Amino acid sequence: MDRKENASGSEPTLPKGVLAAALTPMDQDLAPVYRAFVAHCHRLLAAGCHGLAVFGTTGEGTSFTADERLAALEALLESGVPGEVLLCGTGSSALTDTVRLSRAAVGVGAAGVLVLPPFYYKDVDDEGLFRFFAEVVERLGDERLRLYLYHIPQITGINLGLPLISRLLEAYPGVIAGTKDSSGDMERIATLCKEFPDLSVLAGSESLLLDTLRGGGDGCISATVNVTSRLARRVHDAHASGKDDEAEALQKRLTQLRASIEAYPVIPALKRLMASLTDDEVWCNLRPPLSRLEDKRAEDLLSGLPLSELL
Amino acid sequence: MDRKENASGSEPTLPKGVLAAALTPMDQDLAPVYRAFVAHCHRLLAAGCHGLAVFGTTGEGTSFTADERLAALEALLESGVPGEVLLCGTGSSALTDTVRLSRAAVGVGAAGVLVLPPFYYKDVDDEGLFRFFAEVVERLGDERLRLYLYHIPQITGINLGLPLISRLLEAYPGVIAGTKDSSGDMERIATLCKEFPDLSVLAGSESLLLDTLRGGGDGCISATVNVTSRLARRVHDAHASGKDDEAEALQKRLTQLRASIEAYPVIPALKRLMASLTDDEVWCNLRPPLSRLEDKRAEDLLSGLPLSELL
Repeated sequence: MDRKENASGSEPTLPKGVLAAALTPMDQDLAPVYRAFVAHCHRLLAAGCHGLAVFGTTGEGTSFTADERLAALEALLESGVPGEVLLCGTGSSALTDTVRLSRAAVGVGAAGVLVLPPFYYKDVDDEGLFRFFAEVVERLGDERLRLYLYHIPQITGINLGLPLISRLLEAYPGVIAGTKDSSGDMERIATLCKEFPDLSVLAGSESLLLDTLRGGGDGCISATVNVTSRLARRVHDAHASGKDDEAEALQKRLTQLRASIEAYPVIPALKRLMASLTDDEVWCNLRPPLSRLEDKRAEDLLSGLPLSELL
Repeated sequence: MDRKENASGSEPTLPKGVLAAALTPMDQDLAPVYRAFVAHCHRLLAAGCHGLAVFGTTGEGTSFTADERLAALEALLESGVPGEVLLCGTGSSALTDTVRLSRAAVGVGAAGVLVLPPFYYKDVDDEGLFRFFAEVVERLGDERLRLYLYHIPQITGINLGLPLISRLLEAYPGVIAGTKDSSGDMERIATLCKEFPDLSVLAGSESLLLDTLRGGGDGCISATVNVTSRLARRVHDAHASGKDDEAEALQKRLTQLRASIEAYPVIPALKRLMASLTDDEVWCNLRPPLSRLEDKRAEDLLSGLPLSELL
């Protein structure tokens, strides 16, 4: 079946609302552990996540080869996670890796691909960035492609400016489907929502969930949602049912929860939390250059959080 | 034959002196063109280069998949370029790509591998960086491995500090064989030469060639040596034969030549120069995010250089 039209002839749905940037559990050889990955993703969906972004920054996506990412994505789909809730991180410094992985991710049914700008070179111009994304779209030549622009300048050192986004949307309407904006800049997010009504705008943190929804955006994709999904979903639902005061109060709690995790290196902190909450050692491992949280800091983290409210 | 001992029972030679960070020519589909790549590398050696570093920053190494890099390396070796003059850039944000490519490069006979720190994440600690390089060494488990640490903080955003280098040398003596230092910091380079006599220190620019040789270093690996190799070699040889004044005068000219190219985006400028000098359109193409030099700037570049002195 042509993905562009589903059984009822309408456009396929894209994941909106609360999305977790799923962590990737791994064994002592640093290979992904599918069993735990699949279980974690099912648990996130059961806890209220509308969708999952796998192999983003939180999922240590760029620390894995294209083949490793694809194999884990396939395991997820085989386990019954529906493709329509999945965005797959396919960013790489190499155009040909991003193309190959994006093609495969679309082929196996992921709703969209989350694409970093090529992140090795610095001081690159908009022409080069446009060409990168354009090559991805053109080389796939697949009308099912829904490409999300992944803006995270504090890590990539690359700015995806509004003129660039505008040019891409004009060149590839419908294909350039969304953006994950991890700039933390609510003004920019609000502008994106206003200027580009056809773009699905997702904030990179659940701290901005309510503001983003109120600004016309579609939700968030967040690292900390790996453990805050239930509360994040309540914020979303309160907003959706027009309970403004309740949404605001819940958002305040959610923002506080996020802040107490963000005081630590986020990915090591989240893996440490998962290890405590699940008692599974697959959460103890990170691919270098990321390192485990030191014991003393881990104690501080765990003692400062309402563990029963998490997951 | 065990590479650690050659026919005469001595340690294998590593490339020292003037090394070009070879450019990668590509066709309109942005695939490497082996014919032109091989011819360029032979020309560089004929022009006086002691060695070649392929798929470094200048060779757009991180813009190619591991397979693409390996295939081009193999074409080079098959063309008769001796492995002992070759360093292969195997840097990637993914440990498993760097491991796979490094293993293959050593297997086909490259003298060494030039390894970037994993360059996606920022604010990483020495423990994570140590683990990355240690995993590469341990996973290869090949005593033929000669690993060069590639320090280029202005692009990677990562500092390979002296305590880290010291720790790696202690853990893997003989295997951690050298460093390309593109910091441009002559004080750091001199310190590396003094503190780590077993490390082959190569400056990232021929502007520092004479100073590096005088400081006890082994030479340079440089982008602009793609077109300045003859002059760079003369600096090297004048120094080697104790002609200090001549070496100094030649270094001055070399530094000026480098500066007139460095005023432009270096990789696009070098490719534009190669296109003019060889009249071969394979030099017109760059992988995104790099872009061609604009026509006006290209004219300025070409009119400001003594083209007959280049190549």
